[in-house]
Amino acid sequence: MTIKDVAKNCGVSVSTVSRVLNQHPDVSEEVRQRILDEVERSGYIPNNSARDLVKSRSDAIGVVVRGTGNLFFASVLKTVSDEIERYGYTMVLHFISSDADEVKAGAILEREKKLQGLLFLGGRFDYTPSELSVIGIPFVCCSYTNCFGDLNEKDYSSVSIDDFATAYRATEELIRRGHRRIAAVIPSRDDRSISELRYHGFLKALEDHGIPADENLIEETGGCFEMPETYEGVCRLLKRTEDFTAMFLLSDTAAMAGMKALEDHGRRIPEDVSVIAIDGLNVSEYAIPTLTTLIQPAEEMGQESVRILMNMLKDPHYTRHRLLDAPLREGASVRSI
Amino acid sequence: MTIKDVAKNCGVSVSTVSRVLNQHPDVSEEVRQRILDEVERSGYIPNNSARDLVKSRSDAIGVVVRGTGNLFFASVLKTVSDEIERYGYTMVLHFISSDADEVKAGAILEREKKLQGLLFLGGRFDYTPSELSVIGIPFVCCSYTNCFGDLNEKDYSSVSIDDFATAYRATEELIRRGHRRIAAVIPSRDDRSISELRYHGFLKALEDHGIPADENLIEETGGCFEMPETYEGVCRLLKRTEDFTAMFLLSDTAAMAGMKALEDHGRRIPEDVSVIAIDGLNVSEYAIPTLTTLIQPAEEMGQESVRILMNMLKDPHYTRHRLLDAPLREGASVRSI
Repeated sequence: MTIKDVAKNCGVSVSTVSRVLNQHPDVSEEVRQRILDEVERSGYIPNNSARDLVKSRSDAIGVVVRGTGNLFFASVLKTVSDEIERYGYTMVLHFISSDADEVKAGAILEREKKLQGLLFLGGRFDYTPSELSVIGIPFVCCSYTNCFGDLNEKDYSSVSIDDFATAYRATEELIRRGHRRIAAVIPSRDDRSISELRYHGFLKALEDHGIPADENLIEETGGCFEMPETYEGVCRLLKRTEDFTAMFLLSDTAAMAGMKALEDHGRRIPEDVSVIAIDGLNVSEYAIPTLTTLIQPAEEMGQESVRILMNMLKDPHYTRHRLLDAPLREGASVRSI
Repeated sequence: MTIKDVAKNCGVSVSTVSRVLNQHPDVSEEVRQRILDEVERSGYIPNNSARDLVKSRSDAIGVVVRGTGNLFFASVLKTVSDEIERYGYTMVLHFISSDADEVKAGAILEREKKLQGLLFLGGRFDYTPSELSVIGIPFVCCSYTNCFGDLNEKDYSSVSIDDFATAYRATEELIRRGHRRIAAVIPSRDDRSISELRYHGFLKALEDHGIPADENLIEETGGCFEMPETYEGVCRLLKRTEDFTAMFLLSDTAAMAGMKALEDHGRRIPEDVSVIAIDGLNVSEYAIPTLTTLIQPAEEMGQESVRILMNMLKDPHYTRHRLLDAPLREGASVRSI
């Protein structure tokens, strides 16, 4: 099926079909509808190669995803992909491990794929202007901000939840339910990134409620967000002490691994230990028991990130920093004591 | 930092640096190493734009992912992305919902992005040659085959597990452990796709072991693999009958939703009901109890699919159909009775 066949079947010229497919206004509504019906019926697919050849710029948007087993990013990625396409751009996707350098990966991608813009799905929170000077195109930090760094706010955009405040609220929810012996199993106290920020939110909530932080109840997983390392971390904690009634973890998958470790040590959830986390993944709704968690709005985060990047492409002076709400999703993993 | 700075810092000419970066052999090892060290130290990133401009063909490989909440595909995608990059191509990713037409999506992508090849991550099993005629480039069906269709084997490639045999083995594992009242909650009996094929493997295992299939123990979820619909399906089943000791589900996430529904109805796993599925996701290792499942080898599937596609690009007569093993991952969700 070619454009000639469509024209012939509709009794019009090839250029009329072409005008309709390219959305020129100078064709009557009746003819336009007839042609579109025929295109639909025949399965003809317009070939845009000729048009593409005269495009002088690439239409590529790079997306660097940090942390390959991150289910939250997987849920954002779908929206990001759809949105980039909806704006008429092509997504160039690159996965890196959670300890790799997303800036370098982005810079290489920028040059190799002649990108127009970049979206980082996860990254460090402590960029310096000189580190970022290798990026020569507009970029958006999706799910994080530069709060430990000294980038000028006008040099980049970001869309994220307030990690400190969200961790604070998660901890406060446990306190509100009567818990005072609260453990935290976290990737790292001082990664200059998401783990440090959420850990400080946790500490501040304890402090504001007059609960002394107990070193014995904090366990690090060597910088790792993955389930096996979190499982091991909770096992180490349990070996040291069982003297806690609640546990805070930084992601839903970490919490699921943590609940498994508790269960394997005969600690029932929430009867013996309440568990709370941050993410709001679909899969953790089906955890046994359903995980109580603060929802990072994946779809909104993806939409906003792409929308802001598109504005940055149009207007070189446009930047935006958006903090999204992270509402509580009440599950059955936290009980009042 | 430009190529001139690198040359100056090393005391060599720009063309020498260029020869090293483009891996020409006519530079001494000592100079080559000095230049590479300087590139590393300075953070200089070579700009390939000029070279890319003379490339006459696109380097784009399309990947169409069917079913956006599919965690198994998410795990394959990472490998596919890495492999496509390793071969020097660019991945163009497109997500579609599980009821959308991947062939049409692929055909549009082929034209819009001037693809060299296509990889379908999930799709229907009943393509006809005329339906597939809209695809004009080599393609690989990743995770499925054309067993209900009549494509010529020499016209495409595929990499998948043997869905019929794997469902047969899952069911047989339940029978081996003493179960005879086995329920199945499946998307559809007759979707001409993965659900129908696995359902038939289930039925055949029952038949071969002299167990009459009981209509009352089969529940469909309206073609849907998603967790909420599976949860509802198991609830409908439980409302009708509790007279079963085991349940077969078609994916790990479906099984996790199913276990949740059983739990919510006071049915303990595996004490009251044993559960088995197919996928072998990381997350289901942390289900409570750990899910017993047959592992689809995500990494191998991704690697093989891209490797075969690369061979098809080099040799227009090359096609390959690979069935991968799906070994049992023993969990704690199945018990002997």
